[in-house]
Amino acid sequence: MIYVTRRSTFSASHRLFNPQFSEEQNAAVFDKCANPGGHGHNYVLEVTVAGEPGIDTGYVIDLKVLKQIIKKEILDKVDHKHLNHDVAFLKGIIPTAENIARAFWEILEPKIPRGKLHAIRLQETENNSVEYKGE
Amino acid sequence: MIYVTRRSTFSASHRLFNPQFSEEQNAAVFDKCANPGGHGHNYVLEVTVAGEPGIDTGYVIDLKVLKQIIKKEILDKVDHKHLNHDVAFLKGIIPTAENIARAFWEILEPKIPRGKLHAIRLQETENNSVEYKGE
Amino acid sequence: MIYVTRRSTFSASHRLFNPQFSEEQNAAVFDKCANPGGHGHNYVLEVTVAGEPGIDTGYVIDLKVLKQIIKKEILDKVDHKHLNHDVAFLKGIIPTAENIARAFWEILEPKIPRGKLHAIRLQETENNSVEYKGE
Amino acid sequence: MIYVTRRSTFSASHRLFNPQFSEEQNAAVFDKCANPGGHGHNYVLEVTVAGEPGIDTGYVIDLKVLKQIIKKEILDKVDHKHLNHDVAFLKGIIPTAENIARAFWEILEPKIPRGKLHAIRLQETENNSVEYKGE
Amino acid sequence: MIYVTRRSTFSASHRLFNPQFSEEQNAAVFDKCANPGGHGHNYVLEVTVAGEPGIDTGYVIDLKVLKQIIKKEILDKVDHKHLNHDVAFLKGIIPTAENIARAFWEILEPKIPRGKLHAIRLQETENNSVEYKGE
Amino acid sequence: MIYVTRRSTFSASHRLFNPQFSEEQNAAVFDKCANPGGHGHNYVLEVTVAGEPGIDTGYVIDLKVLKQIIKKEILDKVDHKHLNHDVAFLKGIIPTAENIARAFWEILEPKIPRGKLHAIRLQETENNSVEYKGE
Repeated sequence: MIYVTRRSTFSASHRLFNPQFSEEQNAAVFDKCANPGGHGHNYVLEVTVAGEPGIDTGYVIDLKVLKQIIKKEILDKVDHKHLNHDVAFLKGIIPTAENIARAFWEILEPKIPRGKLHAIRLQETENNSVEYKGE
Repeated sequence: MIYVTRRSTFSASHRLFNPQFSEEQNAAVFDKCANPGGHGHNYVLEVTVAGEPGIDTGYVIDLKVLKQIIKKEILDKVDHKHLNHDVAFLKGIIPTAENIARAFWEILEPKIPRGKLHAIRLQETENNSVEYKGE
Repeated sequence: MIYVTRRSTFSASHRLFNPQFSEEQNAAVFDKCANPGGHGHNYVLEVTVAGEPGIDTGYVIDLKVLKQIIKKEILDKVDHKHLNHDVAFLKGIIPTAENIARAFWEILEPKIPRGKLHAIRLQETENNSVEYKGE
Repeated sequence: MIYVTRRSTFSASHRLFNPQFSEEQNAAVFDKCANPGGHGHNYVLEVTVAGEPGIDTGYVIDLKVLKQIIKKEILDKVDHKHLNHDVAFLKGIIPTAENIARAFWEILEPKIPRGKLHAIRLQETENNSVEYKGE
Repeated sequence: MIYVTRRSTFSASHRLFNPQFSEEQNAAVFDKCANPGGHGHNYVLEVTVAGEPGIDTGYVIDLKVLKQIIKKEILDKVDHKHLNHDVAFLKGIIPTAENIARAFWEILEPKIPRGKLHAIRLQETENNSVEYKGE
Repeated sequence: MIYVTRRSTFSASHRLFNPQFSEEQNAAVFDKCANPGGHGHNYVLEVTVAGEPGIDTGYVIDLKVLKQIIKKEILDKVDHKHLNHDVAFLKGIIPTAENIARAFWEILEPKIPRGKLHAIRLQETENNSVEYKGE
C-alpha cells in the first residue's frame, strides 16, 4: 500500500453564516468571516489515493489522470467562484473548510479509477487546514 | 542604508471588471476574474522600509511599530473584506494587484515614522505578484 | 470525523544537556546543541483536533477559539523565552522537540472544548520535526 | 510513541519507461516522463522514525545519527545521479516515486538503530508526492 | 512603474561539463554536476515585467498572456527535457543556471507585448538561484 | 552582469538590549526581545554575488566555493551559538538583524574570489527580514 498525493490550488470567495441564525448570532459565531460582502482564499487541496503500484507502470494511479479528475470534478466548479452562490454541490451548506472537504470527498470517492481515495486535505490559509478521511 | 521588510497576510475577495466595459468586454479582458460572484485570495503583503539603523537601537524601524501601522492603516480595512465594495480607499479603482499595491503605497508612505517607504510587494497567488517602489 | 489543524510559530532558545552527564558526555551526546550559551529556533507548532463538524456551524472547533487557547496556554509561556530557564512546565525536562511536544500535549489535551486533541506536531528547523499523538 | 522526521533533498534525473512496452505504449502510459533524454527533479525525502524518547537524552533517535544513515545509505547513492543507470538498488525498477520510496524503505528499515522506521515520504515536485509505511 | 512577476516551474535534467576540458578538468571544476549520467532539478522560473498599469485594465500586462508566452517560448521547450541534448536554443552552451537565465532573457525580451522585460530569476534548488536583468 | 544567490540557515539565540539603557528603557524599546533569558531564531541567510559568468565555466562564482566561504567565515561562528556572548565579531554590537547583516557584509566582502558581493539578506522569522547592499 502506497499513498499518492496530488496538490492543487484554487481561488474562491465565501461567507460563513447560518441563515437560521440572526445577524447577531452570525456575527457572534463567525465573527469577521460573516461580513456580508464575503471574503476569499487561495485554497490548497491535497487529494491522497492509496493502493498498490502497478507492476507494469510503477504507478498507484497515474497522477496525470488524477489531475484531470480533480480539474473536471472540483477545480472547474470552484476556481474563481463564490462558494455560497456559484457551486451547485455546496448549495445549502455552510462553506467551512470542514464542509467543503467532505463535499469534495463525496464527489471524488466514486471517481477514482485505481486505488481508493484515502484523504482530502484542504488548507484555507497558511495557518488553518482540515483533513477528511471518510471516517 | 538597510532595507527592512515586514510580511503580513490578509484574505479578501474581489472582482475584476471595468464598469465602462460591456459584459462581453469584461469577460474578454478579465476572463474568469470577471465572474459576477467574485472570488478571493490570501494576499501576502511585504512592506519594505529603507534607512540607517539607529545607533542606540540597531533598528532601521522597530518592526513592532511597522506592524501596528500596517495593521491599522491596511489590514483592518481589507482583511476579510470585499475589495470592490467594502474599502473606501479602493472605491472607483479596478482592484488588480497593481492598483491595490499603489493604493497601499499612497496610504503608508506618509505614515512611516523612521526611514522611508521603499517597496510594496503584493502576492495574489503563489504564482502572481507585483511590486511598487513609488516610481 | 474531521481533523482540524491550527499552525502557530514561536521563537525561543534552549540548550540540550543532561545535568547528570559530565560535560564530555553532554558534548558527545548533544554535540553543538550542548554549547553552554545555548541557541534557538523559530518553532512551528501544529495542533490538530479531531471531531464532528457542528450542524449549526460547520466547525469541528472554532479556530479562533483554538488559537486563543494555544496562545494562552502555550505561546504566552514559551515565545521569546529560554526553554530551560523561563518555562515552569519544562523545569527538569531536557527540552528536545520530543519532550516539548509531549509537554504541550499534557497541557492542551484537557483544554480542548470541542472534539479531541489528535496530534501535536512541532518543527524545530526546516529539516527536523516531531509528532505526538498521545500514544 | 513519538514520530521523528528528518527532511533531506537530492537532485537526480530519471526516465519513466517499461522496456517491455513499445515506444508507443511508453509514450501513451508515461507521456512526457518517457522522453528519451530523461528529465529530473529536486526530490524531497522525509524519513520518519517512531519510538519512545530516551530518558537520558529526550531523543527517539539522535537526528544527527539518522542524518548520517540517510546520507550514507541513500543520498550518496542517488544525489546528482541518473536513477535509471547509476543506482545499483534501482536496477530493473521503473523509477516512479512509488518504487523509489519502497526501495528506500527496504534499505533503511534494517539500519535504524533506535525506534522503528515508520514512513518514507518522497516529494517529486511541489504538486506530486508519495508515502510508504511498509504496509 | 510597477513590476509584475509570474512564477512557473519545470523539471529538466542537465550535465555541467565543458567539452574542451578533459574529464579530470570537468570533474575538478564541476564536481558531481559533471557526473556522466547527468542529474536534474525542479527549476523555478520567475519572469518580471515592468510598466505602467493600463487605465482601462489596471494591468501592467495580463498575466494570462504572459503565462501563455512563457509556456510557448520556454516551458514547452524545456519541461521534461534534457537541457544538454533536447533544447535547440541551449546547443553549445554549458547549461548553468546563469547561462539558462540569459538564454531565456534573449528569447522573452522581444516577445513581451506590454511593458518591458525587467528580470529573469531562475532557482535551481532551494539554496541556489540566479537573476539576470539584461545588464 | 548576473546575480547569484546562495541560501543557508543557522540556529542561534540572542537578546536585544542596550547596556547603556536602564532595564525599563530596554523593556520599552525592545519589549519581549529584551527578556533576560534571551530567545532564538532559525536565521535564513542569502548571500548574493554579482558578476559575469566565466566563458569556460558558465559560473559567476562556483556555488560550492561560495558555500565553503559562507560556512567557514559565518556559519561555523554563529550556528548553535549565542550571538551576544559567543561571537567575536559581534562583541559590543546590539544583535539586531540589521547589525548582523552589516557585520556579515564586512566579513564576506573581501573574501569573494570572483565577482563582487552584492547583497546580504537575513531573515529572522518568516515575517521579518533585512537586506544590506553595502550602501
